[in-house]
Amino acid sequence: MFDDLKYDENGLIPAVIQDDENGDVLMVAYMNKDSLASTVETGKTHFWSRSRKKYWLKGESSGHTQEVRSIRTDCDKDCLLIKVKQNVAACHEGYRSCFYRKLENGQWEITAKKLFDENDVYKA
Amino acid sequence: MFDDLKYDENGLIPAVIQDDENGDVLMVAYMNKDSLASTVETGKTHFWSRSRKKYWLKGESSGHTQEVRSIRTDCDKDCLLIKVKQNVAACHEGYRSCFYRKLENGQWEITAKKLFDENDVYKA
Repeated sequence: MFDDLKYDENGLIPAVIQDDENGDVLMVAYMNKDSLASTVETGKTHFWSRSRKKYWLKGESSGHTQEVRSIRTDCDKDCLLIKVKQNVAACHEGYRSCFYRKLENGQWEITAKKLFDENDVYKA
Repeated sequence: MFDDLKYDENGLIPAVIQDDENGDVLMVAYMNKDSLASTVETGKTHFWSRSRKKYWLKGESSGHTQEVRSIRTDCDKDCLLIKVKQNVAACHEGYRSCFYRKLENGQWEITAKKLFDENDVYKA
């Protein structure tokens, strides 16, 4: 069922991560076939980091893992929607969701509260 | 606020479209700066079709437009989350959401009901 999906020229497919409890969209990240297989196998989300060119278990440094509740794909099979139980927060900047900026009167305004200080969580 | 966003090498940014009423993720599509500007200006979603290489108003053939309720961006400013009032259905295949296939026992199973026959809506 993974060969059936459409990956881009870099072998990646975007995954929308949604909070299974309240429906909030938490983040969008990219998977390759291996990280999707690990996600299904372990029940915890794994991604491919385009900037670090590295395969990662979400939460490996912070402990803020995501437990998979369901996996869906769309009509074109070129995108995934994964519902998760999010531990603590999805965003490495300390917000529950990465989508903490809203367009208000032509400006990107921060509309969420920080749950933690990223300097405490991601120590050198 | 549009120059501030990060577009890919083709000038595109992915947009997650979410139902403002019930939180369902309806679709993921791509915008360029022009289609985002039209979306904000008209209050209806506009996208860039990667396959047809064409700028489009969502619902221009079907009438199934999306009325914008809010626009968010994420920590990296390389993705958008747009909440909409969806008229009829988002998916051109007749489903309310494009994410109508769920992974069940290693298979992609259709878990939603069709709301319309696409042959009736998209006539030649």
